[in-house]
Amino acid sequence: MSSRELAIGFDADDTLWHNETIFEDVHARYREMLSRYHDADTVEATLYETEMRNLDLYGYGVKGFTLSAIETAIQLTDGKISADEIRQLMALGRDMLAHPVELLPGVAETIEALASKHRLLLITKGDLRHQERKLLKSGIAEHFRHVEIVSEKNESTYAAILRRHVINPARFLMVGNSLKSDIFPVLAIGGTAVHLPYHLTWKHELTDTIPLENGRFFTLEGVRDLPPLLETLLARA
Amino acid sequence: MSSRELAIGFDADDTLWHNETIFEDVHARYREMLSRYHDADTVEATLYETEMRNLDLYGYGVKGFTLSAIETAIQLTDGKISADEIRQLMALGRDMLAHPVELLPGVAETIEALASKHRLLLITKGDLRHQERKLLKSGIAEHFRHVEIVSEKNESTYAAILRRHVINPARFLMVGNSLKSDIFPVLAIGGTAVHLPYHLTWKHELTDTIPLENGRFFTLEGVRDLPPLLETLLARA
Repeated sequence: MSSRELAIGFDADDTLWHNETIFEDVHARYREMLSRYHDADTVEATLYETEMRNLDLYGYGVKGFTLSAIETAIQLTDGKISADEIRQLMALGRDMLAHPVELLPGVAETIEALASKHRLLLITKGDLRHQERKLLKSGIAEHFRHVEIVSEKNESTYAAILRRHVINPARFLMVGNSLKSDIFPVLAIGGTAVHLPYHLTWKHELTDTIPLENGRFFTLEGVRDLPPLLETLLARA
Repeated sequence: MSSRELAIGFDADDTLWHNETIFEDVHARYREMLSRYHDADTVEATLYETEMRNLDLYGYGVKGFTLSAIETAIQLTDGKISADEIRQLMALGRDMLAHPVELLPGVAETIEALASKHRLLLITKGDLRHQERKLLKSGIAEHFRHVEIVSEKNESTYAAILRRHVINPARFLMVGNSLKSDIFPVLAIGGTAVHLPYHLTWKHELTDTIPLENGRFFTLEGVRDLPPLLETLLARA
């Protein structure tokens, strides 16, 4: 890294703003709704199974989750769930879509400070309209030079994004909470990756592997630790 | 238009491949399912109302349609719809997502021929994953230099796309079946627009206004008429 400007990609959900907490809350209400029929573990396992079966068709996001939750509820109750309860499920889905965006600590000031020195990209997967709405409500949209909402975050997605914006992987750094979506694919294409663990991780994003310490992977406690790390990296280059 | 290369944007649904016919078929089955409760007109009007109420939150696409169809069915049957019928509605939604892609007449050969001379873009709105899957299944994906899946097709979307790809509006031509989404916004930002009417149009995309004949708007019967039109335009320039 020779000049002073880097291209920094940020994941959105659970990196810039809370997301999994909202899902957790909905899961709790869902288990409660079905508790007359099944224990919590069965409800969770069956819902996850349905989500995975539908993932290729539905993709990520709240609408697919809502449809899978309805499907699972009908299955687990042998069709005894009432239309009113299904209506409640759909209302939960709409509440999630309309939920206020709560930035994580330090995000607003750190993103603003970094945007004056570096080229920031938002790289997130999920529902197009929902992610756009959240970014708009976040109050930090103006700091991102490019916004990329993709259907899956893997090596070829990242490679295509860097190609499109003419970014050298050696000058690209990705920041996110998911080892699977934000860290591994970026390391694989020669970029630098900064893991910001969130206190909750969706099962689908979990991984047992720990990335190798190769000078291109870092774990930080919060986004406020990012500017000092960048200083170190740039000084070292 | 001075050089020989143009940037040509293509809408996807009902321009390159059939889409509204699939929705029509599902609508017919939906009306049939609710015919014990209400006449066809009431069913259609209420479903459309629900879709419009949810549009800002759900955006375009099959998943949002399915959720709106379930919501409307519960409402129109006063909650008397059975869980099994709701399951059938969800299966209809999944069938739509998994439906084979049927290209319109002349699309395969025309797109291939145009791609050798011009820079082709696919510009479509709707569900990210679903549109990507359809393009993949279409067999013509390789001919598009850029693929833009957006949440709404308006003046600012088109302006952003042209800016991103450094395309001069005077050298941009958009081809599509919707006056509202493919024609008006493109004419407004100084581009050329070619209307390819499809035999069905979703109510939301209908408009009463007819664009002005100003030398930048054309209506063709089918995509096969596009290469001759381009020759005329380029000769005239």
